[in-house]
Amino acid sequence: MEHESSNISSGLHEECGVFGVYDLNGNDVASTIYYGLFALQHRGQESCGIAVSDTNGPLGRVKSHKGMGLVSEVISHEDLEALPGNIGVGHVRYATAGESTIQNTQPLVLNYAKGTLALAHNGNLINTPELKKELEYTGAIFQTTVDTEIIAYHIARERLHSKTIEEAVAKTMKKLSGAYSLVIMSPRKLIGARDPLGFHPLVIGKLDNSYILASETAALNAVDAEFIRDVLPGEVVMIDKEGIHSNTSLCQDKVARCIFEYIYFARPDTRIDGVSVYDSRIMAGRILAQTYPTNADIVVGVPDSGNAAALGYALESGIPFGMAFVKNSYVGRTFIKPKQALRVSSVRIKLNVLPEVVKGKRVVMIDDSIVRGTTSANIVRMLKKAGATEVHVRISSPPFLNPCYYGTDIPTGDHLIARHNTIDQIRDVIGADSLGYLSVDRLSDLVKGDRGYCDACFTGNYPIDPPKGEIRGEHDV
Amino acid sequence: MEHESSNISSGLHEECGVFGVYDLNGNDVASTIYYGLFALQHRGQESCGIAVSDTNGPLGRVKSHKGMGLVSEVISHEDLEALPGNIGVGHVRYATAGESTIQNTQPLVLNYAKGTLALAHNGNLINTPELKKELEYTGAIFQTTVDTEIIAYHIARERLHSKTIEEAVAKTMKKLSGAYSLVIMSPRKLIGARDPLGFHPLVIGKLDNSYILASETAALNAVDAEFIRDVLPGEVVMIDKEGIHSNTSLCQDKVARCIFEYIYFARPDTRIDGVSVYDSRIMAGRILAQTYPTNADIVVGVPDSGNAAALGYALESGIPFGMAFVKNSYVGRTFIKPKQALRVSSVRIKLNVLPEVVKGKRVVMIDDSIVRGTTSANIVRMLKKAGATEVHVRISSPPFLNPCYYGTDIPTGDHLIARHNTIDQIRDVIGADSLGYLSVDRLSDLVKGDRGYCDACFTGNYPIDPPKGEIRGEHDV
Amino acid sequence: MEHESSNISSGLHEECGVFGVYDLNGNDVASTIYYGLFALQHRGQESCGIAVSDTNGPLGRVKSHKGMGLVSEVISHEDLEALPGNIGVGHVRYATAGESTIQNTQPLVLNYAKGTLALAHNGNLINTPELKKELEYTGAIFQTTVDTEIIAYHIARERLHSKTIEEAVAKTMKKLSGAYSLVIMSPRKLIGARDPLGFHPLVIGKLDNSYILASETAALNAVDAEFIRDVLPGEVVMIDKEGIHSNTSLCQDKVARCIFEYIYFARPDTRIDGVSVYDSRIMAGRILAQTYPTNADIVVGVPDSGNAAALGYALESGIPFGMAFVKNSYVGRTFIKPKQALRVSSVRIKLNVLPEVVKGKRVVMIDDSIVRGTTSANIVRMLKKAGATEVHVRISSPPFLNPCYYGTDIPTGDHLIARHNTIDQIRDVIGADSLGYLSVDRLSDLVKGDRGYCDACFTGNYPIDPPKGEIRGEHDV
Amino acid sequence: MEHESSNISSGLHEECGVFGVYDLNGNDVASTIYYGLFALQHRGQESCGIAVSDTNGPLGRVKSHKGMGLVSEVISHEDLEALPGNIGVGHVRYATAGESTIQNTQPLVLNYAKGTLALAHNGNLINTPELKKELEYTGAIFQTTVDTEIIAYHIARERLHSKTIEEAVAKTMKKLSGAYSLVIMSPRKLIGARDPLGFHPLVIGKLDNSYILASETAALNAVDAEFIRDVLPGEVVMIDKEGIHSNTSLCQDKVARCIFEYIYFARPDTRIDGVSVYDSRIMAGRILAQTYPTNADIVVGVPDSGNAAALGYALESGIPFGMAFVKNSYVGRTFIKPKQALRVSSVRIKLNVLPEVVKGKRVVMIDDSIVRGTTSANIVRMLKKAGATEVHVRISSPPFLNPCYYGTDIPTGDHLIARHNTIDQIRDVIGADSLGYLSVDRLSDLVKGDRGYCDACFTGNYPIDPPKGEIRGEHDV
Repeated sequence: MEHESSNISSGLHEECGVFGVYDLNGNDVASTIYYGLFALQHRGQESCGIAVSDTNGPLGRVKSHKGMGLVSEVISHEDLEALPGNIGVGHVRYATAGESTIQNTQPLVLNYAKGTLALAHNGNLINTPELKKELEYTGAIFQTTVDTEIIAYHIARERLHSKTIEEAVAKTMKKLSGAYSLVIMSPRKLIGARDPLGFHPLVIGKLDNSYILASETAALNAVDAEFIRDVLPGEVVMIDKEGIHSNTSLCQDKVARCIFEYIYFARPDTRIDGVSVYDSRIMAGRILAQTYPTNADIVVGVPDSGNAAALGYALESGIPFGMAFVKNSYVGRTFIKPKQALRVSSVRIKLNVLPEVVKGKRVVMIDDSIVRGTTSANIVRMLKKAGATEVHVRISSPPFLNPCYYGTDIPTGDHLIARHNTIDQIRDVIGADSLGYLSVDRLSDLVKGDRGYCDACFTGNYPIDPPKGEIRGEHDV
Repeated sequence: MEHESSNISSGLHEECGVFGVYDLNGNDVASTIYYGLFALQHRGQESCGIAVSDTNGPLGRVKSHKGMGLVSEVISHEDLEALPGNIGVGHVRYATAGESTIQNTQPLVLNYAKGTLALAHNGNLINTPELKKELEYTGAIFQTTVDTEIIAYHIARERLHSKTIEEAVAKTMKKLSGAYSLVIMSPRKLIGARDPLGFHPLVIGKLDNSYILASETAALNAVDAEFIRDVLPGEVVMIDKEGIHSNTSLCQDKVARCIFEYIYFARPDTRIDGVSVYDSRIMAGRILAQTYPTNADIVVGVPDSGNAAALGYALESGIPFGMAFVKNSYVGRTFIKPKQALRVSSVRIKLNVLPEVVKGKRVVMIDDSIVRGTTSANIVRMLKKAGATEVHVRISSPPFLNPCYYGTDIPTGDHLIARHNTIDQIRDVIGADSLGYLSVDRLSDLVKGDRGYCDACFTGNYPIDPPKGEIRGEHDV
Repeated sequence: MEHESSNISSGLHEECGVFGVYDLNGNDVASTIYYGLFALQHRGQESCGIAVSDTNGPLGRVKSHKGMGLVSEVISHEDLEALPGNIGVGHVRYATAGESTIQNTQPLVLNYAKGTLALAHNGNLINTPELKKELEYTGAIFQTTVDTEIIAYHIARERLHSKTIEEAVAKTMKKLSGAYSLVIMSPRKLIGARDPLGFHPLVIGKLDNSYILASETAALNAVDAEFIRDVLPGEVVMIDKEGIHSNTSLCQDKVARCIFEYIYFARPDTRIDGVSVYDSRIMAGRILAQTYPTNADIVVGVPDSGNAAALGYALESGIPFGMAFVKNSYVGRTFIKPKQALRVSSVRIKLNVLPEVVKGKRVVMIDDSIVRGTTSANIVRMLKKAGATEVHVRISSPPFLNPCYYGTDIPTGDHLIARHNTIDQIRDVIGADSLGYLSVDRLSDLVKGDRGYCDACFTGNYPIDPPKGEIRGEHDV
Repeated sequence: MEHESSNISSGLHEECGVFGVYDLNGNDVASTIYYGLFALQHRGQESCGIAVSDTNGPLGRVKSHKGMGLVSEVISHEDLEALPGNIGVGHVRYATAGESTIQNTQPLVLNYAKGTLALAHNGNLINTPELKKELEYTGAIFQTTVDTEIIAYHIARERLHSKTIEEAVAKTMKKLSGAYSLVIMSPRKLIGARDPLGFHPLVIGKLDNSYILASETAALNAVDAEFIRDVLPGEVVMIDKEGIHSNTSLCQDKVARCIFEYIYFARPDTRIDGVSVYDSRIMAGRILAQTYPTNADIVVGVPDSGNAAALGYALESGIPFGMAFVKNSYVGRTFIKPKQALRVSSVRIKLNVLPEVVKGKRVVMIDDSIVRGTTSANIVRMLKKAGATEVHVRISSPPFLNPCYYGTDIPTGDHLIARHNTIDQIRDVIGADSLGYLSVDRLSDLVKGDRGYCDACFTGNYPIDPPKGEIRGEHDV
């Protein structure tokens, strides 16, 4: 079970990961951030960066290194050595093509009346136009196209009328509408903030005398840190030399965690707000076995994210679990896509089927989603060519019907096959013998009955109204 | 199930992959070679290259592109476009550190009395010193430190007294002692040759009107080609505009296929000489379940290569199969290894354990080999920390006791834990509750009872005597 | 006579060059900017950039490309092709080490209430702290450390209360104190502005139906454009589809052109405000011959900038002119400086003396300045080793006594040899037989008697008071 | 006076430079080679390399670093540190486009029966086909397309029947026909060899306890070494721990030094076989003044190589010398050539004319050669546009009529304007008011009356017969 960075059939992307460390003993933290970002790489592969500072050094001397590409491509041993400091933040980012520029890399490092700030942001704001307009008419200039810059402006301005930076952050949050998990470094403090609906995860960890903020618990494991607790939806945590301080004044009853973090985005070895992502996926498989049983000889998952749900289906149904696919893990960013003239397809190069596993068998194939349907069709075809007599496709999420405005790249309706096709039509398009989706009704089972999640991409029930006349993609993440 | 390029616990490397295409219709083949090398990337990640020619163009005009790094790093879209030609060969290479230089990249392209040759070689010769001495005293100069150059010299010299290039290859083979799967391009022919003992695989495929030679059948699948047959141990195949020609005069009864290709090196979706690698691994797991049964709650495999054997163990024992590990697939060549000062370990960054899978359980952990033991110890520790109550380690190969002289990097005895420790001592070193290795006696079961394999690394029964006073590593691959 | 980019003995740097084009016919301008920046490369070699827009395209869609290094290193053919648009600005930059970062590259591209702006700036402001403070306390955040960002903020804010962008620029200029030659692109206009004292040059040119703004006339020649006129000190010129418009409301009587542009910074083939730089240097040489005559056999100039003054000295004195030095033009940014252990020196590698020219001769050696004295000492030593019997050093500027606050890197007093040594002492330090500097009184002769120049680095007569307690280097350029 | 690497009007290239050092005290030499190659960069800008060894270390352990590009681009500080050893050779190379590949970079490092060799070669052999054929039919394979490999083979083979490496070199020289200045490193010796006709230079220097071999004396100056003497045409020098040894058995009466080394290729600060290159050029200018006097107001040289001859013309004629051109020294390898659509020309970007110098004047313009005539025409046009009333062109060499087979890129007749045009026609093509070439009869005056030079490119008197049916360019350099 590998990181779920790029599910082969859906191609969907989570759009950012954040990481921050404050070492109370004064040790350098850049290496820890480096390994933390490695563990969050599945949340963004287009650019990354680290900014550090020394709480005992001159106020506000921030060093940063950012670039386009993977953590291993952007940050060298020499770069790490040139990032001294015991407090720091890091970021991995995914963006839609047009805005994937060096200007938009994070952490955003800035100087303002009260010193320096470095911000790393995961999420997407709904009220960017209003926030921006307000800033523009009081003389702001924008050098990036990321929401982070807008948040930074508001914090900097609130700070002028606040006693502390964490107060400024809290005041700013009252203006922000949308999804955000923020990690912020001021000269002497590390701050974490999560939007009141808690769309995306943010956790607190501890390693010796260091406090850590991270998008996922898996990043704590990677650096051998201990999980302390989740940052609460609406909470601001501030870490200084005295330790952790919390402001929960914006916490509220209603929360709306992104259910797709559980289904696909997060690593299976992450726990979000007390629920194991792995358990969620096993449960999704079990539910599919209950709601769409079938007579079959083997259950297989489309790598990597389909495997856990496939295990759940196997456990529930009693049909043996198998591993039918061999994945080529060398297909990276610079991979040259095959031209039309060649008979080889990108899917074919990434994925091969083991005939030994499926030949002469009725196969249940589990995947986490279908976006356009073309890749699923390719995989079903490969299974049949390898000798599968039947292919029953089960999807561990409901059909996508609506775009997401909160920080993922689920596209607008026009590109969603389920928007314009019945289940039977989709089944025919992908060439499956049967097709079953997870029911919207059962989503709450993935998070142990808790109803505090966002399923707008399936249901259209947006916890915050999307901007009028707005289509996804115009805003950056 | 991902490519088995770098098993996390053993760290062993296969040392080369070869690929060749001849398109009888005159279409360019560089793209096909590119995708073929992608599928063989697990056989060598240090350097790669492609050389092409046009059988209808001026005789012996060869274009090549080579470099240090992965296929995706070395070869760009522009590079492919600058490689026109309907005949070509490609290579991926792994080498020990000192000799991983640009000079040693392949295919080796050369000019001699009869035109041009491009050679790609997988394997290792035993009698390099003698072959080299003979050449030196007749005025050879060496610009690389690879065996391929020595083979090339001999072919070029035999060619002076042969009617055809394939005859020269066959004559040369009589002088070579050791392991070699060769793919050779002459101006108008594509030649494949496999040593008489057949240490490493070499197969023939067909895609439309193209003939393909490749180290593994999985590379045929990747380009959507049809598998024709294996090149026989000792056979020379020659492809020209008339089709395939074969010379089997060097074929013999005794063969010695590398058994570790089945256990670890080859992709699970490859078939070698009629035996499915996947089936071999399932069988290894079954044998372990028969010979080292245990009371346990779950069977898990160390990614990626341990998974198939784990499935076999589960099938045979009835103990449920589980996936306990999450692997970080972003750890590439440029990954910065953690310094001692940090508590994080390389294993920890590459691999995380899912407590949900192992907590409170007795775990059978399947891996394909133990070399030094340190990584296995780390993984066992991680399982226990995640709550496993017992960890029973089963290894799908016998203990390594001897170095390999035929093209893999199994080290000399001093670095092999099994050489100086009893099974019980190894069990203690790695912290397992029990430890079982595959028995040497059962190796033949992996290849359906066929006794024609080499197991020298386990038994010391070298099918060709290793060079006297020779230690592995002085020769290149 | 080569570009005067890096005089070997002084090592002083001009600190920026700007270039802008508006093509009324709608043709792409990126290539023209590229060649224009090439011709201005001597004004800044650390970073460069181009930003373009299409006046007929969607409002405010700006494309830019920036990077660290020379124009030829940063901008590729592909980059130029990805910069479509008929209006654009470019910049070359030099900065002191610490602030030579990607964030500080220009043109600065930004978005604000009224659309987009791209700014390129040559010069240095005196009242940055006040301007910044004002901005900070009204909620500005700073992502760079360049003055350009501060200017941009003020323009963006003034624009909110102005009818046009050019009005906003003019209002901003009333607040700015210091040196600035600005080229600004708004969605539909190209704007040039020069500070009221006119420290640095800015000229207008025309090429077919394109208007061009550039730091020097030599950049007009390079793209085959016709020189129209200088932008006046204090003038704002605005070019739109109707042509050129001018606002001279800030023009004043007093101007203070940097005299060192004539002596050293500008290209000899540039004319600044009606005076040929080449003529200025010939005149400097003539004055030296008048004021410091000597009996000598040959006059030589230290390349490249010393040659014109040497010609002037030769013409005035009747002593023959010679070329005694051979310069290595391959010494670029990445040149590895010799270690102490080696006897070779950087000067030695850059410069060699022709014994044929100086052997047995009394030599007059002309250079444009002495900063620390060490390099001059090296060159005098080389001349004597090559056989010169006497070396009489003549400097075509007065001694440096004070730092510059207006955009050049003349260092603070501590590093200026003339601050702590008499002329005789300096002569001894550099090993010359005699030494003569240009007299401060004669500087006006270089610009044909015009008294409107700044000579503060020689005299301390700062046309604008330097910031209190300020030392050069804390502000960026 | 800058390095004459790439005369703007002719564009001709010298084709290699060599450098070698043996430090008897055991100090590392890579840095000295680096600075030596810097000084020889004008002799080859396409690739370069360094190979070193330690005479006290294990026999034949050679480290090398080579690459495409300038010395400053290819060799980093880290590369130098990874090249330990007290004996080494270096090379800079220019090649025609097709063969400018990494395989052909030098020094060529090889292994043979008697150990290792590293070879660096400047020149071109005439009898390559015969030498190659002989090798091929005794079983040689070729991995490059440079003559150096052929020379290496012959040395390696002679070594089998010789007592010493220097004896093998001398025996090999008897077989070689053509131009070669060789620097060779064996495990314990540094060897220099120059062909019996002495086409290209090779000199011996000393720096402390290091012996140096270099293509030009200017490279000795650059590293502060003392000039000892020229290697004689036909001589083999061998340096070992005992010092220098010489074998002059191949020296002969007839020599044929390339006269164009004096006119253009070599640095002006180099002395070749006792004659100063600078003096040669001054003399060429003087002769032109004698043979083609004119009434003019100023004499100017086309940078950089035209300047010395222009000084000579001025001295002889009494017409004042001037510097009319400003050259852009930033135009490097990656410079993007202007497209047809733009009015700017490459010449225009590289060169600007100072109107102050030529306006209203009758100008004598000195250049070292005319190849195709187009660039000269451009420059004459620029002078006239800047106001020159007359332009009298004087060329410091005779007209090119024949290709060179000895190591320079003077093209075949078809591309030489003088081959198909009378002097009057050429004058009209370039738009000059008069045109005069140096007379073939006066060439000996450039080398003080010595008749031992090659002027085949002007006269067709080839000192060694060119290969039959051979055209330049098929052989590499």
